[in-house]
Amino acid sequence: MDFNITGKDLNSSARAGILKTDHGEIPTPIFMPVGTAGTVKAVHQRELQNDIEAKIILGNTYHLYLRPGLDVLEAAGGIHKFNGWEKPILTDSGGYQVYSLSNTRKIKEEGVEFRSHIDGSKHFFTPENVMDIQRTIGADIIMAFDECTPYPCDYDYAKKSMHMTHRWLKRCIKRVDETEGKYGYSQALFPIVQGSVYEDLRKQSAEEIASHGREGNAIGGLSVGEPHEMMYDMTELVCEILPEDKPRYLMGVGTPANILEGIARGVDMFDCVMPTRNARHGILFTSEGVINIKNKKWEKEFTPIDTEIGGYVSTFYTKAYLRHLIHSNEILGAQIASVHNLTFYLWLVKQARDHIISGDFNSWKNEMVVKLSERL
Amino acid sequence: MDFNITGKDLNSSARAGILKTDHGEIPTPIFMPVGTAGTVKAVHQRELQNDIEAKIILGNTYHLYLRPGLDVLEAAGGIHKFNGWEKPILTDSGGYQVYSLSNTRKIKEEGVEFRSHIDGSKHFFTPENVMDIQRTIGADIIMAFDECTPYPCDYDYAKKSMHMTHRWLKRCIKRVDETEGKYGYSQALFPIVQGSVYEDLRKQSAEEIASHGREGNAIGGLSVGEPHEMMYDMTELVCEILPEDKPRYLMGVGTPANILEGIARGVDMFDCVMPTRNARHGILFTSEGVINIKNKKWEKEFTPIDTEIGGYVSTFYTKAYLRHLIHSNEILGAQIASVHNLTFYLWLVKQARDHIISGDFNSWKNEMVVKLSERL
Ligand SMILES: [Zn+2]
Ligand SMILES: [Zn+2]
Repeated sequence: MDFNITGKDLNSSARAGILKTDHGEIPTPIFMPVGTAGTVKAVHQRELQNDIEAKIILGNTYHLYLRPGLDVLEAAGGIHKFNGWEKPILTDSGGYQVYSLSNTRKIKEEGVEFRSHIDGSKHFFTPENVMDIQRTIGADIIMAFDECTPYPCDYDYAKKSMHMTHRWLKRCIKRVDETEGKYGYSQALFPIVQGSVYEDLRKQSAEEIASHGREGNAIGGLSVGEPHEMMYDMTELVCEILPEDKPRYLMGVGTPANILEGIARGVDMFDCVMPTRNARHGILFTSEGVINIKNKKWEKEFTPIDTEIGGYVSTFYTKAYLRHLIHSNEILGAQIASVHNLTFYLWLVKQARDHIISGDFNSWKNEMVVKLSERL
Repeated sequence: MDFNITGKDLNSSARAGILKTDHGEIPTPIFMPVGTAGTVKAVHQRELQNDIEAKIILGNTYHLYLRPGLDVLEAAGGIHKFNGWEKPILTDSGGYQVYSLSNTRKIKEEGVEFRSHIDGSKHFFTPENVMDIQRTIGADIIMAFDECTPYPCDYDYAKKSMHMTHRWLKRCIKRVDETEGKYGYSQALFPIVQGSVYEDLRKQSAEEIASHGREGNAIGGLSVGEPHEMMYDMTELVCEILPEDKPRYLMGVGTPANILEGIARGVDMFDCVMPTRNARHGILFTSEGVINIKNKKWEKEFTPIDTEIGGYVSTFYTKAYLRHLIHSNEILGAQIASVHNLTFYLWLVKQARDHIISGDFNSWKNEMVVKLSERL
């Protein structure tokens, strides 16, 4: 993997770059649609590529491990062959889902014991086997196994958890460095900074993560309920410590405004279920602000969803038609809203990149943060 | 509306034709995907046009009347403008849904009183207001308001119901002939033959319907649970009476074999929820036979769904991937299976048409009926 910075903003820490993987190049800053179980919900692969213009998507290790299972994924020749998405893919480590979805889980130094949310069966994730699982899934970027602390989280727990994440990281690195990809292309391991909302812990964790000199670094444990300002402060503090010449990935973030503020602080990669999950509930992100399409006011609004951002779905379908579909629980409603929101998110990061390169990112960002947060 | 027969099979009553409407030409025999509430479930309009190659779709008067409602449809300028499908559309009369969905309904000579399945509100459909409603929806082909009798149905009820349908037809015709389309294009009214499975009633009804000399004629009350042979016999008997120079529409039919047998008996148009409904449950119709994609045997079948029929969805996605999606209740599973099944149905009627024109329809049909009914 290779990362080149091609432009920097003078009035913020924002930068534009190109991240090269064996499955293609990713312009940064970038938003990565979440493809939980090998599918970005309600979106065809062709739409991801041609309409949304996604450059990299996510897969969730926890979900893929349970269904379709490693056996099927290995027989297919990895996740790209399995789902037909031949561009870059990133998998998380499964940690986050284990904590949030599994009905019973026990965290020990050795790893995490949990039960499947599907059939209640017992499983055990360790730093080592999660690396092996991600080798079998076959993403281009794989994540270290960590504990993502909740918010609020008391200082002592955050500190203890952070050190365990650091010890787990060493085990992840050892395993990854003594194995190799199964399908002939390379996989980059990104370690994850933790430390909750405590400055000294975040600093310590960022230094520890930076010291390993991996090909990219991630910031975890944010966007879990803390105030936005706290998230921005932690992001800024961590970005200042993480190496400048490596991509920085802020996990699970966020709203359009969160993303722009993250970019301003030096983040290059983002992922979030928000555009697709909110879409299914009729919440649309547009270039003019946020729309709740279920509101009566859109009933006879026979204008396209958003002509500014382009793409078939956003320019072809009208707000009135989409309102009718969401209101009637029609599957096509979820499809249109999902493709639209993702088209918007990819449009947004492309705009940000263009403004970084043209030199006026920060003033543009300050305007957009206000505009995009408006409720229409 | 204009109908030209362009080819006839020598060994059956099958014929190929072109049906001209103000929204474009329809090659026949044709299958019409069902777009209940103004959407063919889980299918984008672009996919209908480019992948499935649908030439005409259905809308359900009952559903559209309740949601989005006539007010919205009229403000939009009719159904084509509302959902963006600018090719031909046919609406049913709402009768069938009133009988099957409404929790309480009372059939009187004047019309049918029913309650909405959505909010329990009370409504009244009459032959006259159903014509007005279909004027407002704005389909190219509109259907007479009829009573669709169930199976089994005793002779006396079938006879009484049929005559009421005939009396309702006269009221429909009167209303349609004294009004006109609201959006500048014409709408053709198709009357419906009833008579359950009784030969003398079917004959009498077909003669009555034929006597009105409308632009097309429909056969209703079949495919409601009766044995296939009975359906074929009734279809044959009715087609022999309905005028040859007008399109014949067999309502709510059916399996791929049903459609081929209908074509052999002189039917030109079909509609059915089967391809989309079965798709959502993982039942696929393919050029090799029927597949239950949930079966374990497809778990590692990394071959395309059906290369024979063409189209993005059927040639791009594998059976193993689709199995995983359906198994995991992922929306994309319903999307892929729905587009595939409809692509297959449109491929099938196109094949039938080509074989009618090339002169070997009947032998091809007899082979296909066996092949397509096989469970793989
Ligand atoms: Zn430590
Ligand atoms: Zn009569």
